[in-house]
Amino acid sequence: MKINDLAMLIQGQVEGDDNVDVVGLSGIGAAGRKDLTFALNENMLNLAERSQTACVLTTLTARKSTKPLIRVHNPKLAFLFSYRILCPLKPNNPFIHPSAVVASSVKFGNNVRIDSQVSIEENVTIGDNVIIESGCVIKENCSIGAACHLHPRVVLYQDSVLKENVILHAGVVVGADGFGYVKEKGVIYKFPQLGKVIIEENVEIGANTSIDRGALDDTVIGANSKIDNLCHIAHNVKIGSNVIMAAQCGIAGSTIIGDDVTMSGQIAVTDNVTIGKNAVIGGKSCIIGNVDENALMWGSPARPLAQTKKQMAVLSWLTKNFSSVSKVVKEKS
Amino acid sequence: MKINDLAMLIQGQVEGDDNVDVVGLSGIGAAGRKDLTFALNENMLNLAERSQTACVLTTLTARKSTKPLIRVHNPKLAFLFSYRILCPLKPNNPFIHPSAVVASSVKFGNNVRIDSQVSIEENVTIGDNVIIESGCVIKENCSIGAACHLHPRVVLYQDSVLKENVILHAGVVVGADGFGYVKEKGVIYKFPQLGKVIIEENVEIGANTSIDRGALDDTVIGANSKIDNLCHIAHNVKIGSNVIMAAQCGIAGSTIIGDDVTMSGQIAVTDNVTIGKNAVIGGKSCIIGNVDENALMWGSPARPLAQTKKQMAVLSWLTKNFSSVSKVVKEKS
Amino acid sequence: MKINDLAMLIQGQVEGDDNVDVVGLSGIGAAGRKDLTFALNENMLNLAERSQTACVLTTLTARKSTKPLIRVHNPKLAFLFSYRILCPLKPNNPFIHPSAVVASSVKFGNNVRIDSQVSIEENVTIGDNVIIESGCVIKENCSIGAACHLHPRVVLYQDSVLKENVILHAGVVVGADGFGYVKEKGVIYKFPQLGKVIIEENVEIGANTSIDRGALDDTVIGANSKIDNLCHIAHNVKIGSNVIMAAQCGIAGSTIIGDDVTMSGQIAVTDNVTIGKNAVIGGKSCIIGNVDENALMWGSPARPLAQTKKQMAVLSWLTKNFSSVSKVVKEKS
Repeated sequence: MKINDLAMLIQGQVEGDDNVDVVGLSGIGAAGRKDLTFALNENMLNLAERSQTACVLTTLTARKSTKPLIRVHNPKLAFLFSYRILCPLKPNNPFIHPSAVVASSVKFGNNVRIDSQVSIEENVTIGDNVIIESGCVIKENCSIGAACHLHPRVVLYQDSVLKENVILHAGVVVGADGFGYVKEKGVIYKFPQLGKVIIEENVEIGANTSIDRGALDDTVIGANSKIDNLCHIAHNVKIGSNVIMAAQCGIAGSTIIGDDVTMSGQIAVTDNVTIGKNAVIGGKSCIIGNVDENALMWGSPARPLAQTKKQMAVLSWLTKNFSSVSKVVKEKS
Repeated sequence: MKINDLAMLIQGQVEGDDNVDVVGLSGIGAAGRKDLTFALNENMLNLAERSQTACVLTTLTARKSTKPLIRVHNPKLAFLFSYRILCPLKPNNPFIHPSAVVASSVKFGNNVRIDSQVSIEENVTIGDNVIIESGCVIKENCSIGAACHLHPRVVLYQDSVLKENVILHAGVVVGADGFGYVKEKGVIYKFPQLGKVIIEENVEIGANTSIDRGALDDTVIGANSKIDNLCHIAHNVKIGSNVIMAAQCGIAGSTIIGDDVTMSGQIAVTDNVTIGKNAVIGGKSCIIGNVDENALMWGSPARPLAQTKKQMAVLSWLTKNFSSVSKVVKEKS
Repeated sequence: MKINDLAMLIQGQVEGDDNVDVVGLSGIGAAGRKDLTFALNENMLNLAERSQTACVLTTLTARKSTKPLIRVHNPKLAFLFSYRILCPLKPNNPFIHPSAVVASSVKFGNNVRIDSQVSIEENVTIGDNVIIESGCVIKENCSIGAACHLHPRVVLYQDSVLKENVILHAGVVVGADGFGYVKEKGVIYKFPQLGKVIIEENVEIGANTSIDRGALDDTVIGANSKIDNLCHIAHNVKIGSNVIMAAQCGIAGSTIIGDDVTMSGQIAVTDNVTIGKNAVIGGKSCIIGNVDENALMWGSPARPLAQTKKQMAVLSWLTKNFSSVSKVVKEKS
């Protein structure tokens, strides 16, 4: 594709030789003679010039270059759109592998691909253009919306609901029983886990993450939210839309996470609390109470970021000046 | 079932119209006209009265209600027993799916169900009423006690022992090699992992949790203990009975956890320590030494709860009063 | 085998009755009359003497014993070598289970074992003596070096590269998409994840660990490194050689971990930092910046170990003396 044609599609402006062809995309380091790459800053632009790259997506304000440029508002986003244009998804090859075990009551949409060794039990509904890769197990009464993509070895327990365009990576478990017990006179009884999991449209969930079914109510993951690898979402949790949750976070039972919340990795959130919309939580925090909308929180236990930083500074100062501190306290008390 | 008949079975007292039928169970929010629900407090009772529920399980001391009540000592426990009465487990349909691969030396009890795509290797023994769901892999010489339930895609490495009534959720790995190496002159050698895993009766283990085999000795999970999702139990760990361990905890090698210990989520316990019986550990704690029986611990590193709370209060006070603190120290030292 | 013959192979010196036979190996507790065990100290030697063990591997300087001894420089390492001698690996039985689904373009080395329910897609290359256990899924264009061992239910996404002698435990996921998104005007776009994962020779990776593919560049795990269960390695991470990483660690995107680094469990490392060679990081630390070579770090956030310990001591002192501290501050400020 001529970079002029590409620039039109991504609303960019070509600068330099506009007669150049691009065939693929690449990071700066490995960019070849027919590759498009992107540069967010001077340093990346320098690297791009030393590479073989055919053309560089860069900002509106970057300096001129010896390479052909396409100037755009957001080069990273433009790179993403260019990827979709230059490397379009192959159309699905509708197919049910003969080694798959599919119950007779399963309802299929159009253009569905079911790979080897998949098991699909009774009364499952599968939308158009769904891909279910090898080794997935779909228990009874699940509903899988159009264009969902289940990578290998995903498990959906009974009654799980995926809306459209949900991506589940390998090893994800949806709908296992919540961790609910009643202790009476030293005996631990398992409480019934009768709710289900609902995952709304455009959600992506990382490898080996587990999302438990609700006890009586449902567990819900809101539209467009992205959850990374090895996270734990307990029973009855409600996650809003547009939430970003990095790897290894754990959300305890019945907690509510508002829309547009951003969480770094390894955060623990206790049960039955609410994290307000648009809050941002720093990595490895421990949330033990409600969090206000728009709050910036960090620490274990988490406090507003500025407060946690001040506490750390105070403790550092006291440690540095400890001989003076202890002398004053001993003399004057 | 008439609520009078149900009340007799769960040792409760009916108050109000005892000619009511219940068919199912539900949380308050979704309770329908034939559903039983439960109310632990005034607030839940108010909600129940506004629902369609047929009957409410509640405490001995709750107020009177417009709805028929069954008064019991522990409404949550009574709800659980009512569930077992109203929704009894379907009897197992003994069955080996033709896609399962089962070695000829495997010994089956009565009434065993083996779902699709399961692999069971040589010399495995399977007790009565066991359910092994799709995609599980059982390596050689394992023993699976009566009424065990393995959800999809569980892996048992060779020699693993499950006593009766063990529930393993999807993606659990039992018996992988412990993380044992010997480093000599910069070279890392893998130490033999010859022990096995023994999981005693009535244990339940959450999705994607891993329990490593012992190096020379065995790894043991005691009877009635409950372990949540994504936990890591290292080689040679001994977990007592009635232990409750929430999600994403990690227990390092050869550590001993006493009976009736309760652990919240994301706790780390170092190797070769002992946590005394009945201790309670707060979420995200880091245990770096032995813990006394009955102790309440919290923090990273964990200390007795009261001490951790006092330290936090002191640090908060110092931070708030830092200008005074620093002035005093500078002037007087 | 006569212990004299064994001692020659492991470069040890027999003391006591050298006409003794050993058949197997065991920890001290369970050692039988034909078993070899090892004792690193006086306490273990006492236990060994009270056991049935045939012979004890011990240090050059241990006391004399009533049991036949083999004195060696490093008894644990000698035990490991004895294990390899007394219990040699069975030669592989080359075999492709009929339930495995293998694409026609897959290239096999000699002596490969493929167990039941495995799926291997197009253009995969498999070296000599490889073992792929039940339920593994190998996507297209993967390369698996000689003598690799994939335990049950491992998933390799497309393009993954394993060099020789890599061990992957059950449930490992290699090459899932990295957690990369671009947010523009409140909309979250998925960034292309075009890199791959390269795992170098002699790496061992624990159960249910996930290693994401690179976004544009590759994710690399260096030779001889050992990663425990339930770890998360994000896109573009470069892990050096001889790294030891205990369970449940999480390494965020593009971070570099130098050779010979040792990490305890549940450590979080933020994105785009470098941990210098030979650093040692304590359990549950949170690394939020670069770490020097040879550093000892601990804490959340992590600081040099001595500093973290001093801070803890200062905070303990202030808490203990809080009434004096607050009195001085109130009076003198």
